[in-house]
Amino acid sequence: VPRYKIIIEYDGRGVNGWQRQKNPNTIQEKIEEAIYKFSRQEVVVHGSGRTDAGVHALAQVAHFDLAKHYDTHTIINAINFYLRSDNIGIKEAFLVDEKFHARFSAKCRHYKYMIINQEAPLVLERHRAWGIRTDLDVCAMQKAANLLIGNHDFTSFRAKSCQAKSAIKTMNFINITKSENVITVAIAAPSFLHHMVRNIVGTLVMVGKANFMPNQIPLMLAAKDRASAGITAPACGLYFVKVEY
Amino acid sequence: VPRYKIIIEYDGRGVNGWQRQKNPNTIQEKIEEAIYKFSRQEVVVHGSGRTDAGVHALAQVAHFDLAKHYDTHTIINAINFYLRSDNIGIKEAFLVDEKFHARFSAKCRHYKYMIINQEAPLVLERHRAWGIRTDLDVCAMQKAANLLIGNHDFTSFRAKSCQAKSAIKTMNFINITKSENVITVAIAAPSFLHHMVRNIVGTLVMVGKANFMPNQIPLMLAAKDRASAGITAPACGLYFVKVEY
Repeated sequence: VPRYKIIIEYDGRGVNGWQRQKNPNTIQEKIEEAIYKFSRQEVVVHGSGRTDAGVHALAQVAHFDLAKHYDTHTIINAINFYLRSDNIGIKEAFLVDEKFHARFSAKCRHYKYMIINQEAPLVLERHRAWGIRTDLDVCAMQKAANLLIGNHDFTSFRAKSCQAKSAIKTMNFINITKSENVITVAIAAPSFLHHMVRNIVGTLVMVGKANFMPNQIPLMLAAKDRASAGITAPACGLYFVKVEY
Repeated sequence: VPRYKIIIEYDGRGVNGWQRQKNPNTIQEKIEEAIYKFSRQEVVVHGSGRTDAGVHALAQVAHFDLAKHYDTHTIINAINFYLRSDNIGIKEAFLVDEKFHARFSAKCRHYKYMIINQEAPLVLERHRAWGIRTDLDVCAMQKAANLLIGNHDFTSFRAKSCQAKSAIKTMNFINITKSENVITVAIAAPSFLHHMVRNIVGTLVMVGKANFMPNQIPLMLAAKDRASAGITAPACGLYFVKVEY
């Protein structure tokens, strides 16, 4: 059967995250419904990873199988037609080998987190970034971030609800850049624990405010205790950027 | 009496533009109401210029007078407190000389227009940019734009409803840049006619699609006829950027 890989953009505001669940209004469910409406097939859309309520995606990846072959322009336009009143859009579609799996074939996942350093409340970037009034020390944040690169036990940075068997993950990079009053944290790893990016960003922001010193990061990792690290950054500043296969 | 200059950011979506009118839900009215709520004074907030429904502002400028003196932090925080459920925010406030007038003292107004060149419908930038599926020829657009610089009769680029006495305006610059799939038109002039920026951008987009050639621009200007120029670009892609005094 033909397997399709789709690249999805969505606005996380007002939806209950990626994964279908008892509560309605998830990205996965809305895409499955749109596929049903044009193909009359009930499919499971497998995402590369879940995102929490409020988290945005520039290029989430998913796959699904259809009994009948459609060309990829039809896939894009038909799904987008039924998603037109939602803040979800299919940017690209590819016919892929049936060995391709959006989740299990993923080699590296990229996120970015957007912080806006300004005194006034956010307006155009409300629900799109974390507004922080006090000036953050970006150099201290990058120093702290560097101590998270590589292979570590990230127990101190995982949500209690996290279902992963192991908390050992490999961080490829965390690059913090500032352009005018916008601070962007770009972060990549083969895979992440639940809330890991948001817990890392929350901790880095506390370093930026001098609530923590960068050299406390190794102690947080060693503690293997969520309480030793910083707060969870709000979902609205987080963007799922892309997946490498 | 103390005169205050305020710098305002707003999301144009869902509001009826800047200017107070018979229909409610304008930016001017909402700010005047917020000022009344904290000061119990009915003031007129004079903007540097009107913006249409749907048009955003990064830094609109306005002034108003209060009988009593407040420090500028109080002005910012009090207005923002009452505007908190609206997509409007005061970014800065200054105590200014009573000779300052947001509209009449303005020397140059800056706008930008955002176009996103992509096949898929816009999602995160929906209501924030003009999504155009066909690739635009940015060089041809810039060539056409250059022919609008300087002093001209812009009758062909003004809305029928425009109330200005003269259609003669001086265009300081129109700079078109492309970064990945985002095309930004930055445009500045001492003052503009009604719909002038949107009519210029709509015409430049038609040049970018080869519906017009750049050398038709002087003919459009000479025709002094709205029908000779191109379409009106949608409001949602337009941002009022700043005012120079």
